[in-house]
Amino acid sequence: MSQTKYVLGEDAIPTHWVNLLPDLPGDPLPPLNPGTGQPAGPDDLTPIFPMGLILQEVSPDPEIPIPDPVRDAYRLWRPTPLYRARRLEAALDTPARIFYKYEGVSPAGSHKPNTAVPQAYENAQAGIKKLSTETGAGQWGSSLAFACSLFGLECEVFMVGSSYDQKPYRRSMMQTWGATVHRSPSDLTDSGRSQAAHPTGSLGIAISEAVEVAAKDPNCNYALGSVLNHVLLHQTVIGQEAIAQLEMADAFPDVIVGCVGGGSNFGGLTFPFIRGTLRGENKIRYVAAEPAACPTLTRGVYAYDFGDTVGLTPLMPMYTLGHGFVPPPVHAGGLRYHGDAPMVCGLVKAGLVEARAYKQNETFEAAVQFARTEGIIPAPEPAHAIRAVLEEAEAAKQAGEERTILFGLCGHGNFDLAAYDAYLAGTLEDPEFSEEDMRAALDALPSAPALA
Amino acid sequence: MSQTKYVLGEDAIPTHWVNLLPDLPGDPLPPLNPGTGQPAGPDDLTPIFPMGLILQEVSPDPEIPIPDPVRDAYRLWRPTPLYRARRLEAALDTPARIFYKYEGVSPAGSHKPNTAVPQAYENAQAGIKKLSTETGAGQWGSSLAFACSLFGLECEVFMVGSSYDQKPYRRSMMQTWGATVHRSPSDLTDSGRSQAAHPTGSLGIAISEAVEVAAKDPNCNYALGSVLNHVLLHQTVIGQEAIAQLEMADAFPDVIVGCVGGGSNFGGLTFPFIRGTLRGENKIRYVAAEPAACPTLTRGVYAYDFGDTVGLTPLMPMYTLGHGFVPPPVHAGGLRYHGDAPMVCGLVKAGLVEARAYKQNETFEAAVQFARTEGIIPAPEPAHAIRAVLEEAEAAKQAGEERTILFGLCGHGNFDLAAYDAYLAGTLEDPEFSEEDMRAALDALPSAPALA
Repeated sequence: MSQTKYVLGEDAIPTHWVNLLPDLPGDPLPPLNPGTGQPAGPDDLTPIFPMGLILQEVSPDPEIPIPDPVRDAYRLWRPTPLYRARRLEAALDTPARIFYKYEGVSPAGSHKPNTAVPQAYENAQAGIKKLSTETGAGQWGSSLAFACSLFGLECEVFMVGSSYDQKPYRRSMMQTWGATVHRSPSDLTDSGRSQAAHPTGSLGIAISEAVEVAAKDPNCNYALGSVLNHVLLHQTVIGQEAIAQLEMADAFPDVIVGCVGGGSNFGGLTFPFIRGTLRGENKIRYVAAEPAACPTLTRGVYAYDFGDTVGLTPLMPMYTLGHGFVPPPVHAGGLRYHGDAPMVCGLVKAGLVEARAYKQNETFEAAVQFARTEGIIPAPEPAHAIRAVLEEAEAAKQAGEERTILFGLCGHGNFDLAAYDAYLAGTLEDPEFSEEDMRAALDALPSAPALA
Repeated sequence: MSQTKYVLGEDAIPTHWVNLLPDLPGDPLPPLNPGTGQPAGPDDLTPIFPMGLILQEVSPDPEIPIPDPVRDAYRLWRPTPLYRARRLEAALDTPARIFYKYEGVSPAGSHKPNTAVPQAYENAQAGIKKLSTETGAGQWGSSLAFACSLFGLECEVFMVGSSYDQKPYRRSMMQTWGATVHRSPSDLTDSGRSQAAHPTGSLGIAISEAVEVAAKDPNCNYALGSVLNHVLLHQTVIGQEAIAQLEMADAFPDVIVGCVGGGSNFGGLTFPFIRGTLRGENKIRYVAAEPAACPTLTRGVYAYDFGDTVGLTPLMPMYTLGHGFVPPPVHAGGLRYHGDAPMVCGLVKAGLVEARAYKQNETFEAAVQFARTEGIIPAPEPAHAIRAVLEEAEAAKQAGEERTILFGLCGHGNFDLAAYDAYLAGTLEDPEFSEEDMRAALDALPSAPALA
């Protein structure tokens, strides 16, 4: 039997991150200062980000070297395995060859440490003593807590209220790594106090609180787990390793599938391949899977909008459901964001990436089939990708073609078993985005230049 | 910098298990039929075990081939990584080189699938349709549920009542893999009904229930997650891989440390090394770490005793705290067993393995230090091994010697964060085994031949 799992030695950890910016067609749309409406420059960002990350955010270089201390920390879990899903293929009776890149082997159980580590490193290098951040289900907050513990930084996390109440174990995980965790909205910030009427909180509110803390304390910076260029940049270790592992398997993808919340998992897996597509070296199709309850790419407006609820961040060009939109509490907490990374949005806008939205129950149905064949219980976020993979595998079967499918299994579901419980008991809901939500989203857009 | 992580390709998955039985000095003490007091033969075991496993249990062959379908399933997570704990070494300022073999990358998060898979396979080969078992914290039950899903077997799990109430996520995990889970003691069995006065349950009671179900249903067999020879045999893939990985690191252990509950993690890691020790090829020291609340090896009596509470199993020669002993509810659920594997007990009795008992808080203190340096949050069971490793590292420092320490990190703590929460809040208890417990243990021993 051929291999099931393609493993690489530590020397195969990438030495550079792939920066897709210079390959994108046209000039990138800049973020805007919300006060002046003018392009935001480094000065708009220095109160909350170190210069090392700001330079990565706007770099014109196609490759950016990974600092040695970051590569050394990556050794704790990288390279991650690439699997051939032989048992799933057999269960589906499909001619498709299905591969998945598994990021759940990291200490925090997802792809998030890939960027948490370089962010903590650059801040420590800049003499910063503390990082503040937000977290929803806890994947990002626990990853940053882990990264801060490696570089001797304090870590303060504002955790979305509903998740804080429902997921005490993720909070304990952050505390075990030494972080301080607050329930958001808190009474520790102006932003939190202004949102006391929304006691369950939202990612947008928690971002406002964390940004405010960082802006007021010169020893503290802010760290974001997705959306920004430098975050997607750091995640490109995923796609680079996948290219090397697919070569071991003598395979090349016809289609690549990833789930999209803020876009860092999707960008990290696809950008090293998309660079080849943009340069005419391959003709891969790309599928972005998102929740029907928060259908940013499939139903959002392409416009400038805030990254947070209160309106403290620069305006970013992206598909958005409106910065005031509070998505229904689907279990894929990492996909509950009103916007998406500008770089991913631009690729969707350009027609290079196809977006699809799925309802909650159909994603869990796919996840359970995956767990019972491949063994790994997926997080609810990549369950959306698995749903799309089942469609692609069926399409290959209908066409009678041996297509190669690659998808990102960006985290395990060890902290999401209450959701599986609800699915198996038949009590899981299928919330959808409504016309009323749509009208509210449009009304809430800030005044800013229109986007074509 | 030298390597942090030593990874092997799939071709390095062992092709044989290491059977230590023929190397042990003297004739092995047989299990006894509890009714006749005579050595238990295959006929005593066929009602609940398939012949394939019974033959492994008593095999005189030093190596037993791993069937191809088992090796194929092992590919889902094996070989597991071996790490050099460089960050922990630096934090301890020790000249010792510390290595750990990490089994938490398996789908169920521990070493247990190493034996669950071959047990499910042998039963499926024998035409069995269902397996019954017990589980405490859920590591074993979830591993067997996973293995049954791979080979198309039904799986029925009796889960210790207190864990069933406290750890709903482990139950959900088993159900996600398709298993049926009952709270034990249940009213489904005579054994369960007879123990209704102990509503929190115990491993011994749950074993009685699962054995009873298997004994009454010809299509159902029983599966045990530790203690028996064939279970320890299956776990020797751990130690064999570790030998190959230490060779990559140009290292050989001076001391090997593992936690002991039933003995399968400890045996799996050490037996491939102990064979060399018994043959005069090395002089490794071996340290078995157990809880002070259930100090089987350090304070138990060496005697024949039942494996379960009700007295359905053969009598086994082992250190025991008495089959009626219900250990206090320490969080290391996998170490809460009144006995230990006869093979491990024999090695302790012979002076080849040194046993040490630790209190709960000192093990969590060690685990938090490990999490904040190495990144991985350990399960409470291997936290006992880490405590012993800290002692060994300090001893090396005092002696000024560059000793090499290997230990087994047999599982992650993702399902044990409530325990970390209690430790960090200062509310974790330190139960200890009392003189009264000791007297009760001695009184409860069944009449059987005395052991030297």
